[in-house]
Amino acid sequence: MSKGSETFDRLVRSGVSIGSAVGISRVTMGDLATEAGLSKSGLFAHFGSKAELQIALFAFAKSLARHTVADPAFTAPIGLRRLRALIDNWFGWARQAELPGGCPFASAAFEFDDVEGPVRDSVVSAHHEWVGLLEALTRDAVSTGELRFDLDVEQFVWELHGIYLSHHVSDRLLRDPRAENRRRVAVDRLVGDATTVTIKQIEGNA
Amino acid sequence: MSKGSETFDRLVRSGVSIGSAVGISRVTMGDLATEAGLSKSGLFAHFGSKAELQIALFAFAKSLARHTVADPAFTAPIGLRRLRALIDNWFGWARQAELPGGCPFASAAFEFDDVEGPVRDSVVSAHHEWVGLLEALTRDAVSTGELRFDLDVEQFVWELHGIYLSHHVSDRLLRDPRAENRRRVAVDRLVGDATTVTIKQIEGNA
Repeated sequence: MSKGSETFDRLVRSGVSIGSAVGISRVTMGDLATEAGLSKSGLFAHFGSKAELQIALFAFAKSLARHTVADPAFTAPIGLRRLRALIDNWFGWARQAELPGGCPFASAAFEFDDVEGPVRDSVVSAHHEWVGLLEALTRDAVSTGELRFDLDVEQFVWELHGIYLSHHVSDRLLRDPRAENRRRVAVDRLVGDATTVTIKQIEGNA
Repeated sequence: MSKGSETFDRLVRSGVSIGSAVGISRVTMGDLATEAGLSKSGLFAHFGSKAELQIALFAFAKSLARHTVADPAFTAPIGLRRLRALIDNWFGWARQAELPGGCPFASAAFEFDDVEGPVRDSVVSAHHEWVGLLEALTRDAVSTGELRFDLDVEQFVWELHGIYLSHHVSDRLLRDPRAENRRRVAVDRLVGDATTVTIKQIEGNA
């Protein structure tokens, strides 16, 4: 690793850490220069603009998430166990990755929704990539016959995302000690509905 | 209405409107002074500090939500119909109230989670107040026998909140035209589970 890339790595690490608390959109070149003991012009050697900096921070956060959430899930056997491992690693991954302010992608979804430009585009694309992985592992669990064959996989993941966001709010804003239990009950209900045939459906088919 | 309170009203209206897009935490005294054609010191006659301004903006947003979401729901008969009216009015209320950037409370939950102080406190208290209303109307629908007697009302509302946040992200960040349909399916499933006995439960009781 060259000295330049070491500095780059240190910069994005501390940028993501700051951004997890105050929001990535608030991480300025000036703050980061101070934090890293560099001049602001020294920082421009690494990032050409504020947008470039923010995109680099999201790219780094994505690599953190890959190591903390996705990679370890792939040691579980394909199907429902791998999907559940992915979900379990997802909730609270930011704490695991030592980001003091929680998941930067959850906040970014609300921070950048009205801000046109390349940073917003990178947030949208990270969202699609993550949802794509959740959908792929959900489809695997349909293939193994553990989730029902007629499951609306996109709807399933959409609702899972809602549970994640509600957990984020109750954990971080409300500091509710029941957050962990609430999300477990909600995920179990969602997965339960994806496996169980309800009376209503039987009546409908009769 | 005195001239002072008219000005106050105009200031908070435009502050909430700006804040709905960029986040209430980013509405500065300077921006609002420019917008209203006042001097910054003129603005201090209305708000003593930035925190006071932000708290006033949330108070105004709350009164907007009351008129758009809560009040009209109370014309529906008590029970499940009133609860469903409240939920229907809730989704997309910010558009109804002509806030260009969506629900300021949804964003605030992620903006203020790591910012200690009186503004955070007012966001938490607005959240509890809103959840309290949802829980009260849910309990009414249990009382009328429309939702099942053993429903975990707090969990039900917690999951409903997740559907709201997922809808916010798919509507505003992803601009997905299916957002409306997704939230309808999710709410129907949640309400369905709160009324239907599943086979699993019957087996458990057998």
